[in-house]
Amino acid sequence: MNAHSLYRPVSGLDLLERIGNDSRQRGLVVEDALARIGQIDPEVRAMTVVAQREAAVAAAIAATGPLAGMPVAVKDIFDTADLTTGYGSPIYEGHRPRSDAAVVTLLRRSGGIVVGKTTTSEFAYMAPTVTRNPCDLNRTPGGSSSGSAAAVAAGLVPFAIGTQTGGSTIRPASFCGIAGYKPTFGMLSTVGMKCFSWSLDTVGLFAAGVPDVAYLAQSLSGRQLAVDGSTTRPVFAIPEHYPWTEPSANASTVLEAAARAIERAGGRVRPIRFPAWMTDLIGAHHTIQSYEAWQALGYEYDRHRAMLSPMLADFLERAGEIDTAAYVRACVLAKEAKEGLSSLFHGMTGLLTPSAPDEAPDGLSSTGDPAFNRNWTLLGCPCVNVPGLWGARGGPMGVQVIGRPWDDARCLDAAAFVERAIAECTA
Amino acid sequence: MNAHSLYRPVSGLDLLERIGNDSRQRGLVVEDALARIGQIDPEVRAMTVVAQREAAVAAAIAATGPLAGMPVAVKDIFDTADLTTGYGSPIYEGHRPRSDAAVVTLLRRSGGIVVGKTTTSEFAYMAPTVTRNPCDLNRTPGGSSSGSAAAVAAGLVPFAIGTQTGGSTIRPASFCGIAGYKPTFGMLSTVGMKCFSWSLDTVGLFAAGVPDVAYLAQSLSGRQLAVDGSTTRPVFAIPEHYPWTEPSANASTVLEAAARAIERAGGRVRPIRFPAWMTDLIGAHHTIQSYEAWQALGYEYDRHRAMLSPMLADFLERAGEIDTAAYVRACVLAKEAKEGLSSLFHGMTGLLTPSAPDEAPDGLSSTGDPAFNRNWTLLGCPCVNVPGLWGARGGPMGVQVIGRPWDDARCLDAAAFVERAIAECTA
Repeated sequence: MNAHSLYRPVSGLDLLERIGNDSRQRGLVVEDALARIGQIDPEVRAMTVVAQREAAVAAAIAATGPLAGMPVAVKDIFDTADLTTGYGSPIYEGHRPRSDAAVVTLLRRSGGIVVGKTTTSEFAYMAPTVTRNPCDLNRTPGGSSSGSAAAVAAGLVPFAIGTQTGGSTIRPASFCGIAGYKPTFGMLSTVGMKCFSWSLDTVGLFAAGVPDVAYLAQSLSGRQLAVDGSTTRPVFAIPEHYPWTEPSANASTVLEAAARAIERAGGRVRPIRFPAWMTDLIGAHHTIQSYEAWQALGYEYDRHRAMLSPMLADFLERAGEIDTAAYVRACVLAKEAKEGLSSLFHGMTGLLTPSAPDEAPDGLSSTGDPAFNRNWTLLGCPCVNVPGLWGARGGPMGVQVIGRPWDDARCLDAAAFVERAIAECTA
Repeated sequence: MNAHSLYRPVSGLDLLERIGNDSRQRGLVVEDALARIGQIDPEVRAMTVVAQREAAVAAAIAATGPLAGMPVAVKDIFDTADLTTGYGSPIYEGHRPRSDAAVVTLLRRSGGIVVGKTTTSEFAYMAPTVTRNPCDLNRTPGGSSSGSAAAVAAGLVPFAIGTQTGGSTIRPASFCGIAGYKPTFGMLSTVGMKCFSWSLDTVGLFAAGVPDVAYLAQSLSGRQLAVDGSTTRPVFAIPEHYPWTEPSANASTVLEAAARAIERAGGRVRPIRFPAWMTDLIGAHHTIQSYEAWQALGYEYDRHRAMLSPMLADFLERAGEIDTAAYVRACVLAKEAKEGLSSLFHGMTGLLTPSAPDEAPDGLSSTGDPAFNRNWTLLGCPCVNVPGLWGARGGPMGVQVIGRPWDDARCLDAAAFVERAIAECTA
C-alpha cells in the first residue's frame, strides 16, 4: 500500500469472511458503506445517486448467495429501475428506466446490494467526469468507468461494475491502483447497458485485488473463475514494441519491476513481436466503434445534438461519414485476427503489458489514453489490471495480463500470481 | 394472388416508382396508409398504436432517402420515443421509451415514416396476440411478429420490421403469404430492442415480395442487397429428412411445387442429408434461449412474475434451472456447427425447406410451430420466406431459402428467382 494514498480499498473476500453468516453484520456492512459514501464522496465524487438506506439495509439482512450483503456500486450506464440512470448525459437527466440491466439482476440474485450508481463519462465515451482519483485528488481516475474505479479505490464499496469499449475498465483500474477485469467478450450480458458499440461493449469489474475481482466474476457468471493458485510457473509474453504508442519510461520501469517479480516467484517472461495485423486492428477498432455508435446513439445525435458534448458530437459527426464497406472490412480484419490469436499465445500463459501508457495524468481534463486496451477489447480477450506498483510521480500503475478468449480462469489465476509476486517483492 | 384473400399486400417498390420525387404524393401515401389502418385494422388488429397524422404526413413530405415517404410499421418490441412501447406485456403498459431503437433511427434516416407499432407476442415469446391473419380472419398470423406480418399482408403498409429469435419472422410471413427476411445474425442492430436472447435475437423484415424486402434490407443496412436477377441457374439443396419435425403432407406438396417451378425456370434441386449435429442444435437453441432469457427478462420475472403469462412464467421458471455448464456446451456446439456450415452448403446456392410445418393453424390460440426456423436462427444464416403458394386448406404457405452467413445478397437473389419461378407456374 502506497503511503501517499488517502484511502484504502476494501477486500470483498476479507469482508465476506469477516461477516460469515451473520445477517446483522450484513446490514452493518451496507450501513458502513453508505456512511463512507456520505463522508468521502463529497471529495471523490464517484457516485451519481445513492440507494435509500432502510431498503438497502433490509435487503442486505435478507440477502443470500455468494455476494450476500456485499455493497456494490454500478456504473450509471446500466439501467436500474429503482435508481435514476443518466448515462452521463444531460439528455437523460432524471431518467428512471422501467427495468434493471441483466448484470444488475445477476448482482441481486447473487445477494449483492446495489448501494448506488457511479459516474460515467457521457455515454461511456471520452468526455471527463467530475470524479477525482482517490490516490491523488488532483488527478483523473481515468474513464469511462471513472466512478466505479474511484468508489472501489476509495473504499466506498468492495465491488463495482463498469464497462469497457476501448479501455474503460483496465485504464481506470490502473490509475486508481485496484484490480480491474474485462472478461472475454460475451461472458457477461450487456442487456440493459446503454450501447455505444455492440461489437465492443463489455461489462468490466472492479475490486481491491485480483482474487476479489475473480470471485465477483464467478458469482455473476456462474463459471469457475475464482483464483485457486494453480498457476505456479506461468510464462508471460512481453511485446518488444507496440504499434499504438510506446509506453512511457515510467511504465517501462513498472513493467520491468513486474517481470523481475514474476521471475523471482518462479515464473518466466519471453519477448514477442506482434504480427502485422496488430497494427491494422487499431484502425479497425476505430472504424467499428464509430460505425456502430453512429447507429446506437443515432437518436441522441439526430434529436438532441445540442445536448451532446462537443467531443462526442464531433466524434459522431465523423462517424457518420464511415461507409458500410469500410465497416465490413474492419469486421473481417477483426475476425481474421481472432483466428490468428492462437499463434500469438502459443506456449504462453498470457501476455503482459502496461495497462496504460503512464500513470494517471494530472487534472481532470482528460481521462487518459486507452491505446493499450483497445485492440484487446476488439479481440475479445480477457484482460486483468494487476495493481501493486507505483510510478515515479507517485501514482499507481498497473500491469495488464491478457489471456486467450474464454480462457478467463487461467488469465485471472495468472494475474493473481503476478499480484502475489509483486507483493512479495515490495513487502 | 389467392382469390380467397380479403386483402392485398402493397409492393413498396411499385409504390416508390409511382410516387417518384413528388413530395405531395409522399404525403398522400402516408395519409392513405393511415386511412387504411383506420378502416381495416379494427378487423385485423395488427397495430398497437398509430402515429399522429399531421406529424407523419409532414415528415413524409420532407423525407429524403431510399425509403422517402414509405409508411413502415414497427414491431412493438422496438423502442420508439414518440410512440408507446409495450413489448406485448402489461408490465410495460403505457411505457414511453426515452430513445429510438437503432433500426428505427435507420428507418428515419432512410426516409421511412413510422406510421405505427405492431402487436408482438409477450416479449416476442409464444403467447398469442389478438391479431388475425388477413388471409383468413379465423386463423393466427403466426408470431411473434404477428402485427408486422399482418400489417403488410393486409396492405396497411408496404414495409414492416419484426424480429426472429426462434421463427418469428419466417413463420408469420409464410402464414400471411408475404416475403419475410431474417438477415445474417448481426447485420441489423438490435440496440433498443427488448432482449429475449442476445445470441439469437435478430431483426426481421417484411414486405409484399422478395425484391421489396431486399430493397428494404439494402436501405437499412447500407449493403448491396437489392435483387439484381444475377441468379439464373441456382442449385438448391432439399433435405431428405428433418430432425425436428417432418413437414405435413400439405407442406411437402407445396415444397414439391416450388421444386418443380425452380426446375422449369432453369434451376436445379438436389437432395441432402443433414449432419448429426443438426439434431443436437435443436436442444442447443433451447438451452441458449432459455439461459439468456432467464437473465434478459430477469427483472420482469423477479419483480413482476404475476404479470407474466403462465406460458412465459413457466418457460422462465424452467430456464432458471439450466446451469452454466450446459449453456457453455450449447454455445460450443453452436460455434462448431457454424464452422461446419460450409460443407452443408458445398456446391449449393442455398437450401430450400418449408417455412413452417403447415399452413396457419385455425384460431388464435397458438402462433404455430417454429421448428423449421430455430436452427437457422441459431446458425445465424440468412433466411427468406418466399410467398406465392397455397396449401390444401386455402392458406398461404411459403418456402424458405436459407443461405450462408453473410451471403445475404445471393440468398435474396436466389429467393427472388424462386418467387419468379413460382409466379410463372401459377400464372
